[in-house]
Amino acid sequence: VSQHPEPDFARPLASWQARVDNALDRLLPPIDHQPTRLHEALRYSVLGPGKRIRPALVYATAAALKTDAALVDGAACAVELIHAYSLVHDDLPAMDDDDLRRGRLTCHKAYDEATAILVGDSLQSLAFEVLANGTGLPEEPRVRLHLVELLAHASGSYGMAGGQALDLAATGQQLDIEAVELLHQRKTGALIRASVLMAAACAHTSANVALALDRFGTQLGLAFQIQDDLLDVEGDPLLLGKAIGADHAQAKCTYPAVLGLEAARARMLGLHRGALDSLRELGSTAAPLTALCDWLVLRKF
Amino acid sequence: VSQHPEPDFARPLASWQARVDNALDRLLPPIDHQPTRLHEALRYSVLGPGKRIRPALVYATAAALKTDAALVDGAACAVELIHAYSLVHDDLPAMDDDDLRRGRLTCHKAYDEATAILVGDSLQSLAFEVLANGTGLPEEPRVRLHLVELLAHASGSYGMAGGQALDLAATGQQLDIEAVELLHQRKTGALIRASVLMAAACAHTSANVALALDRFGTQLGLAFQIQDDLLDVEGDPLLLGKAIGADHAQAKCTYPAVLGLEAARARMLGLHRGALDSLRELGSTAAPLTALCDWLVLRKF
Repeated sequence: VSQHPEPDFARPLASWQARVDNALDRLLPPIDHQPTRLHEALRYSVLGPGKRIRPALVYATAAALKTDAALVDGAACAVELIHAYSLVHDDLPAMDDDDLRRGRLTCHKAYDEATAILVGDSLQSLAFEVLANGTGLPEEPRVRLHLVELLAHASGSYGMAGGQALDLAATGQQLDIEAVELLHQRKTGALIRASVLMAAACAHTSANVALALDRFGTQLGLAFQIQDDLLDVEGDPLLLGKAIGADHAQAKCTYPAVLGLEAARARMLGLHRGALDSLRELGSTAAPLTALCDWLVLRKF
Repeated sequence: VSQHPEPDFARPLASWQARVDNALDRLLPPIDHQPTRLHEALRYSVLGPGKRIRPALVYATAAALKTDAALVDGAACAVELIHAYSLVHDDLPAMDDDDLRRGRLTCHKAYDEATAILVGDSLQSLAFEVLANGTGLPEEPRVRLHLVELLAHASGSYGMAGGQALDLAATGQQLDIEAVELLHQRKTGALIRASVLMAAACAHTSANVALALDRFGTQLGLAFQIQDDLLDVEGDPLLLGKAIGADHAQAKCTYPAVLGLEAARARMLGLHRGALDSLRELGSTAAPLTALCDWLVLRKF
């Protein structure tokens, strides 16, 4: 597995990334609308470089369910807006205090702290506004309301923001494996799972398939985070584009720290296998989703 | 006009305040759920002392439209959750840097800055989750989705968060009256207007009445903020419970600073009259809404 996805998978991935970037560009407020500096900062924070993993999951799940990408653009944008807001707030001095992200100044460094707080706040509102009245989604209010419910729950204190709180509280502590798993499920897993479930909701999928996709998204989210932890221990800084060992230096609670490297790797591979098993009943249309899962879990970067 | 509302109005106001506090207490996560410290901080930030002005507007509008309070509890909670999140973030050191609010430590002082950021973020998610799947609202997905749209737009960069950005950018600047009005409409007005419109949406009101209530909410929101500005110049610190002159000391862009005291007061009274005129076609059921409007605009505290 190289830094770049397999050739067969590279094309759909690039098209999903371009597709969501186009859609985000269209829905973000223009920079000549007041407040102009805030709107410039929103675009800076959302449209910068990034892998667009969550939108790719939305599109790949839609493809697996034979649903047109034009029916999930809004969901892809909404989940990326939530992810972008979380990065802006996580980078703040009171949180992870990062000056750089993906080689560029973080929002509070490029602008200022107050603007960064308001950027995150506005992006979250915009995510829900898109689900309520944006294009690129099924028209049925029932479906859109379900999307709001999925995204709000995955973002709040039982999801991503709660996971971040658990992470801050755990730093420097000794957690048991259940506590580490809860932390990771919420901090990273909840939004990854929501990306899959939102696409399933747009596709009007059956309860059975939705359940299989729920298992898939849950296992993928956890496997993705364990790989993240593993790469911080044994990754190649050249491929990662950043130094390793940050989790250890910050005394973060990670899978390798709690389980050891070997057991963490085994757990990751087990979850990866379980995620792929969950996709079996979808048949051959699941191929791009399988490839995306492999790429996300087995990546070296 | 005294610090306390008129006797006829005191009873409904107190009952609305108790009603929304009960509903908020039921929907906020219990403090024995993980992350316990975050959940404790959510409750600290929402259930503390406060006038519950926006929920009162939701309930008073519902009463004016002969709609049961049980059909707007969710809207009252959602708008108060957004308001509470904005106070927590506004108090942060990078924003207004306040240590005290309503005589208690602000969230980042009682807990810490990272927790305060996550409290605000979680409260915003919770507001939209309540609208999507909470009790105390009409069941129709179309109505609930409209509530999400109204609240998201009023909260984001074209609403409250954008108004806060305009306020920060304007501090120490000379703005013309149009710019001050835009700032105030968004910073305070948008959420007040949304409180009225959300109740109207729950009441399935006619387009005509919704339009009249839109005019009412817009004018009330602006009048409320001008009165806020005026009280900071000429209010009684004993009634206000805080020192006056803070806007001037911080070189904030206010109506009195731009128009002068007399013209600002005239504008406020004109808006108040306009707001009351907008309620005329509602007939006698509008009495509590009229009383609430008088209380909010003519208050001395």
